[in-house]
Amino acid sequence: MDAELARKDAVRRWFEELRDRLCAAFEELEDRYAGAELAHLPPGRFERRSWKRPGGGGGVMALMRGRVFEKVGVNVSTVHGTLPPGFAREIPGAAEDPSFWASGLSLVAHPRNPYAPPAHLNTRHIRTRKSWFGGAADLNPIYPDPADTERFHRRLKEACDAFDPAWYPRFKRWCDEYFYLPHRKEPRGVGGIFYDDLEGDFDRLFAFTRAVGEAFLEVYPTLVARHMDRPFGEEERRFQLERRGRYVEFNLLFDRGTRFGIMTGGHPDAVLMSLPPLVAWP
Amino acid sequence: MDAELARKDAVRRWFEELRDRLCAAFEELEDRYAGAELAHLPPGRFERRSWKRPGGGGGVMALMRGRVFEKVGVNVSTVHGTLPPGFAREIPGAAEDPSFWASGLSLVAHPRNPYAPPAHLNTRHIRTRKSWFGGAADLNPIYPDPADTERFHRRLKEACDAFDPAWYPRFKRWCDEYFYLPHRKEPRGVGGIFYDDLEGDFDRLFAFTRAVGEAFLEVYPTLVARHMDRPFGEEERRFQLERRGRYVEFNLLFDRGTRFGIMTGGHPDAVLMSLPPLVAWP
Repeated sequence: MDAELARKDAVRRWFEELRDRLCAAFEELEDRYAGAELAHLPPGRFERRSWKRPGGGGGVMALMRGRVFEKVGVNVSTVHGTLPPGFAREIPGAAEDPSFWASGLSLVAHPRNPYAPPAHLNTRHIRTRKSWFGGAADLNPIYPDPADTERFHRRLKEACDAFDPAWYPRFKRWCDEYFYLPHRKEPRGVGGIFYDDLEGDFDRLFAFTRAVGEAFLEVYPTLVARHMDRPFGEEERRFQLERRGRYVEFNLLFDRGTRFGIMTGGHPDAVLMSLPPLVAWP
Repeated sequence: MDAELARKDAVRRWFEELRDRLCAAFEELEDRYAGAELAHLPPGRFERRSWKRPGGGGGVMALMRGRVFEKVGVNVSTVHGTLPPGFAREIPGAAEDPSFWASGLSLVAHPRNPYAPPAHLNTRHIRTRKSWFGGAADLNPIYPDPADTERFHRRLKEACDAFDPAWYPRFKRWCDEYFYLPHRKEPRGVGGIFYDDLEGDFDRLFAFTRAVGEAFLEVYPTLVARHMDRPFGEEERRFQLERRGRYVEFNLLFDRGTRFGIMTGGHPDAVLMSLPPLVAWP
């Protein structure tokens, strides 16, 4: 196998391995649930559905509707082919040669308990004549808990600091700027990191991508576990459904990935898997 | 009063009168409700909230959360001032002189009973160096009923035919093209009419605007009344919440009015009043 093939293979296999470990961690929380409100529901299990991209490659959507997680999706897709001419101009390294390869993992978790924070993770590697990594990990609590926020940021900061001490402050600011609802003058959540166009030493950047995944896998399930059994009532549920509206507004009005997927004929169920299961605009 | 002031005044007063008659018709349905599922709820009444536009003018949002209508909003706004330079270029007659005046009524109704069809009405008059009328009336049933669709279209066709026999086919096609979800390859509903940039004889076009409002006022409450008392269960409710997701997707991803309102700093509660009260993405 040549070096490039070996790299693509290693990246794809990492995303699949991370997906399996995330799904296992979430299913374990489903089993451990010990609250009252949702005890009548059975512990959830992921279901997987694979899809093919007409131009090349495809992916697997893993989706669970459980008692801890009202809806959690983990998508891994590995696609390749030729970028449409108009779009190729916007993509680094694709102006002269529009062929591309991309692999990524995308996760959105919407817990049932309004005190357990929703979260989002995306990491990806893209190869044209150039090659780079990008990603985001951010926390979107209904009721922000300072201890959760601190833990989540600290763990991401550790992952960044092991590679470059300038990264965490830069990626945190980028996250705050990106996940912002201008019409509400509100941030989408309590932040995290966002980065893109990371070019350079493949081994180092791939190691960073793995470190972000490991950090998320380590910290996020502990935040859900802290709150998932807490009692809650109709008032909290109503507020949760209303706050979820902000998530929908961001993704449909502003998120570049969602809008790109929609406008370029992506599978609507895969592109919109991030949308919360139940939402209110009161 | 000069002729132009008299026209503006007549248009504004018509939208306010139509609003009052629509609200009265909807409150009457709230009183007439005789079904079982929602009899524990009191008949709804509209609440009004006025808002001022920083650049000039303002509006009144009339909103009701009742037992027949889970959420119904009727907005009348009459605004004036100066269009921002970038936007003025896109508006007929505003390139040299960006001053404008606009008045309109906008209605979105989301009934509780899944068999009672949601609907949308918007009519407006805009004056720059040019002056024109625009509007839309469309029906968005969860369970399309051929008799409803036929009645709704017939009544709108009558309103159009009294002015120009070419209008109904043209405005119907325009509606089908505009209210389409390309990512789902689905129409948003069963159509109606959509028109814009209607220029010409003020008296005639204002009469047409009134005729569209009268047609909607006459036909839509009868369609709600036909279905509002029908028994329904959890299965229909679930399907209703899912179909409402299409409405959100259209308005946030594609609707020009919504996106314009959001991007130019409109009041988010007024711009997003159209969003359904409760929505599911299963």
